[in-house]
Amino acid sequence: MITSTANAKVKRLVNLGKKAKLRYNEGVFLVEGIKMFLEAPSEWVKEIYVSESFLEKNPPEQLKNRSYEVVSDAVFQKISDTQTPQGVLCVMKMPEYKLAALLNTNKKRMLFLLLEDIQDPGNLGTMFRAGEGAGIDGVIMTQNTVDIFNPKVVRSTMGSIYRIPFMITSDILQTIMDLKAGGVTVYAAHLKESADYDLQDYTKPTAFLIGNEANGLKDETADMADCYIKIPMKGQVESLNAAVASSVLMYEAARQNKA
Amino acid sequence: MITSTANAKVKRLVNLGKKAKLRYNEGVFLVEGIKMFLEAPSEWVKEIYVSESFLEKNPPEQLKNRSYEVVSDAVFQKISDTQTPQGVLCVMKMPEYKLAALLNTNKKRMLFLLLEDIQDPGNLGTMFRAGEGAGIDGVIMTQNTVDIFNPKVVRSTMGSIYRIPFMITSDILQTIMDLKAGGVTVYAAHLKESADYDLQDYTKPTAFLIGNEANGLKDETADMADCYIKIPMKGQVESLNAAVASSVLMYEAARQNKA
Repeated sequence: MITSTANAKVKRLVNLGKKAKLRYNEGVFLVEGIKMFLEAPSEWVKEIYVSESFLEKNPPEQLKNRSYEVVSDAVFQKISDTQTPQGVLCVMKMPEYKLAALLNTNKKRMLFLLLEDIQDPGNLGTMFRAGEGAGIDGVIMTQNTVDIFNPKVVRSTMGSIYRIPFMITSDILQTIMDLKAGGVTVYAAHLKESADYDLQDYTKPTAFLIGNEANGLKDETADMADCYIKIPMKGQVESLNAAVASSVLMYEAARQNKA
Repeated sequence: MITSTANAKVKRLVNLGKKAKLRYNEGVFLVEGIKMFLEAPSEWVKEIYVSESFLEKNPPEQLKNRSYEVVSDAVFQKISDTQTPQGVLCVMKMPEYKLAALLNTNKKRMLFLLLEDIQDPGNLGTMFRAGEGAGIDGVIMTQNTVDIFNPKVVRSTMGSIYRIPFMITSDILQTIMDLKAGGVTVYAAHLKESADYDLQDYTKPTAFLIGNEANGLKDETADMADCYIKIPMKGQVESLNAAVASSVLMYEAARQNKA
């Protein structure tokens, strides 16, 4: 059992939670909680750490006969990102998805979320969760979007991170061109000179392009879209929360595609 | 200028931010930021506090010729709920709305949000903001809902708290009966035995009943609704974020009422 917070393994886990660079160097990320362990594709799970008190209260069979390492409760508190940790933390292998594979689904109806520089961890996680509910086929994010493997984002996806393919793009303009070349219509959520979102046809392959919470889309990015759309706002509301706006759009597409 | 954090006025302001009971005893709440001051109905504003450095950078005319009290930056940091305060904090009079007045609008179309025990401050604020955008006529909350006058909730309404009438009810069952007697159809967002949300007619007076994030609606509350509705969810999603679900419902009602 690891009982010292000075242990090198403990230091690595703490850093994996805090430092995106280290996560990408190792190609791994952290998830917490028994539910997040149980829902994970088993081939993603590389290492399992459990707290002493978790093992006292739970049979080790809960861990699907995988090998695990026990740490003291004090150490677990140190490696955990939550106030009241459940006592299970896993190191997961990062998945890798390719745009060509996402587009190669032979589906007549496809729905993507294309995110430029979303900053709030809760917003990004909520978009994955609502996106899975609405039936999207993937999320594509710019490099300046908050890291999808940030523990707060992972937690707020509520497991959707395992089930929604995603990609990080270093060139969103090129990605938009690739999507368009793949037959996808790209709609930019935009406040100016925009058509009402509910008057468009989302029964063909569709991507919604969503901008940064404070600044919206960059002009050069918005310019690449096929169409600007807006969600009408009454009163003095200047914009909607980015996760709310994305969800309203994705569920309008889902509604149109139900028939 | 107040320079001591031990000053009695400072202690009161700190407590008004932290303690709901004190807010209700005095009938006041706090708002922060110049935008929240400028958007406020002037009759709500009772006291204004500004930081020393705010006054150095901004002409006092920004404060609409209202009298104000200056505090040192250190004191302002103490009374502020934010990491990087803007330097303006107001004590506001709580508004009072009556259900009868909300229902007495002679409008053929009305839309209400009815919230049972929502716990997350960001969710509640986001519901007000999205609700104003969707054109709702009011929000009714149970007493166990997170306090609408909590500084985090106030901030996340982005000013909608000034413009959307709201009430706190001590008897949600009676409130539902009153709404129904007023001609409002009450739809409970519910996961069991529910009809798809988009197949209902929201062009008549409508209320959406939304339950607690973790536990959903209480059975006795849900039982009072005219109809159970659900937002279809694909994949393994068990529920949507409460603010997302509310927004999808409110915007579906707005979409139906556009014509």
